[in-house]
Amino acid sequence: MDNTAAKNWDNDHFMHPWEGMDSLGNNDRTFVEASDGVYVTNDKGDRLIDGPAGMWCVQVGYGRDEIADAMAEQARKLAYFSPFNNTNSVASEFAREIAKRTPGDLNHVFFTTGGSTAVDTAIRFVHFRNNMLGQRNKKKIISREKAYHGSTYLSAAVSAKERDPLWLDKLTNIAHFLPNVNPLMRRADQSIDAFLEEKVADLESAILELGPENVAAYIAEPVLASGGVIVPPAGYQKRCIDICHKHDVLYISDEVVTAFGRMGHWFASKEVFDIQPDIITCAKGLTSGYAPMGAAIFSERLIADVSGQHGNGAVFSNGFTYSGHPVSAAAGLASMRIIEKEGILEHVRTIIPHFQDRLQGLADLPLVVDARGMGLMGCIQCAYDKKRDSDLERDYELGARIDAACQERGLILRPMINMCVMSPPLVITSNQIDRMFDILEDAIRAVDSTRGSA
Amino acid sequence: MDNTAAKNWDNDHFMHPWEGMDSLGNNDRTFVEASDGVYVTNDKGDRLIDGPAGMWCVQVGYGRDEIADAMAEQARKLAYFSPFNNTNSVASEFAREIAKRTPGDLNHVFFTTGGSTAVDTAIRFVHFRNNMLGQRNKKKIISREKAYHGSTYLSAAVSAKERDPLWLDKLTNIAHFLPNVNPLMRRADQSIDAFLEEKVADLESAILELGPENVAAYIAEPVLASGGVIVPPAGYQKRCIDICHKHDVLYISDEVVTAFGRMGHWFASKEVFDIQPDIITCAKGLTSGYAPMGAAIFSERLIADVSGQHGNGAVFSNGFTYSGHPVSAAAGLASMRIIEKEGILEHVRTIIPHFQDRLQGLADLPLVVDARGMGLMGCIQCAYDKKRDSDLERDYELGARIDAACQERGLILRPMINMCVMSPPLVITSNQIDRMFDILEDAIRAVDSTRGSA
Repeated sequence: MDNTAAKNWDNDHFMHPWEGMDSLGNNDRTFVEASDGVYVTNDKGDRLIDGPAGMWCVQVGYGRDEIADAMAEQARKLAYFSPFNNTNSVASEFAREIAKRTPGDLNHVFFTTGGSTAVDTAIRFVHFRNNMLGQRNKKKIISREKAYHGSTYLSAAVSAKERDPLWLDKLTNIAHFLPNVNPLMRRADQSIDAFLEEKVADLESAILELGPENVAAYIAEPVLASGGVIVPPAGYQKRCIDICHKHDVLYISDEVVTAFGRMGHWFASKEVFDIQPDIITCAKGLTSGYAPMGAAIFSERLIADVSGQHGNGAVFSNGFTYSGHPVSAAAGLASMRIIEKEGILEHVRTIIPHFQDRLQGLADLPLVVDARGMGLMGCIQCAYDKKRDSDLERDYELGARIDAACQERGLILRPMINMCVMSPPLVITSNQIDRMFDILEDAIRAVDSTRGSA
Repeated sequence: MDNTAAKNWDNDHFMHPWEGMDSLGNNDRTFVEASDGVYVTNDKGDRLIDGPAGMWCVQVGYGRDEIADAMAEQARKLAYFSPFNNTNSVASEFAREIAKRTPGDLNHVFFTTGGSTAVDTAIRFVHFRNNMLGQRNKKKIISREKAYHGSTYLSAAVSAKERDPLWLDKLTNIAHFLPNVNPLMRRADQSIDAFLEEKVADLESAILELGPENVAAYIAEPVLASGGVIVPPAGYQKRCIDICHKHDVLYISDEVVTAFGRMGHWFASKEVFDIQPDIITCAKGLTSGYAPMGAAIFSERLIADVSGQHGNGAVFSNGFTYSGHPVSAAAGLASMRIIEKEGILEHVRTIIPHFQDRLQGLADLPLVVDARGMGLMGCIQCAYDKKRDSDLERDYELGARIDAACQERGLILRPMINMCVMSPPLVITSNQIDRMFDILEDAIRAVDSTRGSA
C-alpha cells in the first residue's frame, strides 16, 4: 500500500497526543490499518500481535462483527439523543448492566467521553458533595508518584509529574502526591513487609499532615498502569481504604485500565483487592475501545448525601453532549455480551499464570532490569547497564528500540522511555502468549547485540 | 412499548448531565428511541420533529445508512489504534479534510472526545505556548457572561456562572468575564451602534485592566449558543479580534455549535463573521453526533512558535486514548461527504431566511419576550408578563411547559429555564420549518391560555 499521501496528512494535519515539538511534522509513526483478533496490520501489510491491545482497551479483540453490527444498528435506529433533556433505553440498560457488575452499592453511573473526563467528573462530584455537606475546606486529593489519571486540567492535576520539562501549567493547590509504591524502589535491606508498612504510613501521614478536614479523597489505580505497571505490595489497597475511611476520606478507585476483564473480573477492586470504593472510574475496556466512552460510578451512600431530601435544589452542573451516547452504549453492551458468552473472564483467569510466568522469564535477559506485572498487564524496565541505576538520558530510546525490533518480528508494544508495556487483548491464547514472549526475548537479545550503535 | 423496566434503569442507574439532586431517581424524562430524517420517535410511538437536532449536533439528520455503514466498516477493519504511538490513514484523512475547510492557516487538528475536552486542550496549549515563549504570566482567559465552553474543570472555568447556587467549585484565577453582549439587555435609549461600541470597549478595557502581558486569550462562541442563542451586534466579532491582535491576545473561536453547516458554512468564523481566529474548537456537527469527537485546531503560526527549531525538546503532554478514534473519524468523513454530495451548506443558506422569518413571527405572541437567532439557530425567551423584566422564579418552568405542549403536538424542543431553543437538523425542509413553527405557535397559545394553572 502506498501511503505517502496519508503520511503527509498525518504530519501536516494530525497533531497527536503527547506530541514532541521537535519532531512535529516529521514523524514516522507506524500506520496501523487493519486488524483481526489479537493482530493489527501495518501499512506494509505486516500482521503484528497487538501487545498493548491498542491502549489497554481492546478487550475482546479486533474485527468483532457483533460489535460493529450493534453499533451500525443503533446508528440507524437512533444515532444520538440529548442526555440533558431526554433519555433512552440503550443507555439506561447499559448503566444498569454496569451497575449489576460493580461491587456493592456502586449503582449510579455518570457516563463521560473517556477516562480523563470520568476522573474530572469524579473529583468535581466529590467537591460538589463536600460543599453540600458544609465541608467546604475538604477538597484535597491525595494521589501518588507515577499515577496517571488523565489529561484534562483537573485529571492532569492528580497525575504525577511528567519527566519532561514542565511546559504545561499544572493546578498545584489540589493534589498531594505520595512517594512511589513500586517495590523495586525499596532499600536493599528493606523487606516487602516493611515496604508495605512504609507505604501505608505515607498515606496516613499525609492525611494527618494535611488535616483530615481538608482531604476529600484518595485516588488510586489498583495497579498503576501508564506509570509502568507498578504493582504495590500485596494488601496495600485494602490497608489504604481502611485508613481513608477511618479519616472520612473517600476512595476513588481508578479502574480505567483494570476493569472489564484485565484482571480476570468485571472490576478488580473487590474481587482482586478486597476493597469497596466510594467511586470507581472506568473507560477503555468499557467498550473494548470500539467507541469513546467513560464513566464515573458513584455509591448509593454518596448519592444519598446530596439527593432527595438533601438535594436542596442543587444541580450537579457537569456533563457532556456525548454522555451516554447510544452508539457507544450499544458497543459497550455488545462487548459485555461477548465477554459473557465466551467466558472471557474465566479465560483470563486461566491464562494469567502463563502470561506472568513468561513475563518473569524475561528478568534474566540482558538489558532487563525488572519484569513485573499482574493480571494481563506486564512491563519490562530496561537499562544498558543492568547493575546500575537506570540512566534515563542514555536509556531514553531503549523502549522504542525494543519496540522497533519487535515490530520487525511480528509484535507491536507500547514503548515508554526505558520501558515496554504489554496488555494484550483478553482473548489471547496460550500459544499466542508464547509467540509474543518469544519475539520479545529475541528482540531484546537483538537490541543488546547492537548496543554499540545505540 | 412498555418501557417500565427502562424507566427504572434510567432512574436507578443513569445519572444524567446537569442532574437535579431533588429529582434524582424520580425523573420522568422523555425516552427517545427511534429516528428518521428530522424526526425522533418517543417510547409512546409519537414521531416528533427534533427541534434542537439532539443537542445542536445531528446536522445531516437521523438514520443515515452511509454513516452507519462507514462506522461498521471501520469497526470491522480497525476499531481502534493508539494515537500515542501509532497512526492511521482514516484519522489522518479526516484531519486533512477538516484542515482543508478551516479558514486560512488553521491546519493542525488535535482530536479530542468532545467540545469540553477541545476547549480544555486549547487553553492548555495556549498556556504551554506562552510558557515556551517565556511569557509565563500571560495566562488569563477572557470570556463573557452567558458563555458556555464545556464542563471539565478548566472549560467550566471559562464558562459563565450558573444561575443555580454554586455548589460546584470553580477555578477562579483564570477567567475574566465581560458583561452580557445580548442587545436585548441594552438601555432603552441606547442605539445598537452605541451598544456595539460599549461591548467592544468592554473587551479592550478588560485587556488593559488585566494588562496585555497577563492576558493569553479571548474565547468566544460567534453566537452564544447554550446561553440562549445570543447574537452580538453586527461587526462585534471582527472588532474584537482586531483588539485582541492589537494587544497580542489570542482569539479562540469556539465553533462547537456554529461549525459544520449550522450557519451555512463549514466554519462560521471567516465566512460569516470575517475573522481569522488563532484557534478554532469544534465538536457536535463534526460527526453529526453519530460518534463522540471534538477537535482543537491550531494555526500554523502558533505551531511554529513551539515546534521544529523552537521545539526545545518539549512535549505537549495532553491527549486522550480516544483522540482520533478511527470509528469517529469514519463517521465524521461520512457526514462530511453527505453534506457535500447533497449540497447541504447551500440548502442551509437558502432556508435560513425562511427559518428566521418564522422565528421573528413569534415575537408578537403572548408570553414571548424575545425571538432571536441567526443561521439555523433560534431561541424564544418567555415570561408570563411580557411588559416586565423576567421573573425567573415565576417563569422558571415556562420553557419546560412550552416544550411539553410542543411534544403533545409533534415537536421536541430544548427548554432552558424561561427559554426554548431550536437548531434543527440542517436537512430540514421549508415545509418542515413551517410545521415546526406552526406547532410552536399553537403550543405557546395553549400554555398562555392555561397560565392560571402555572
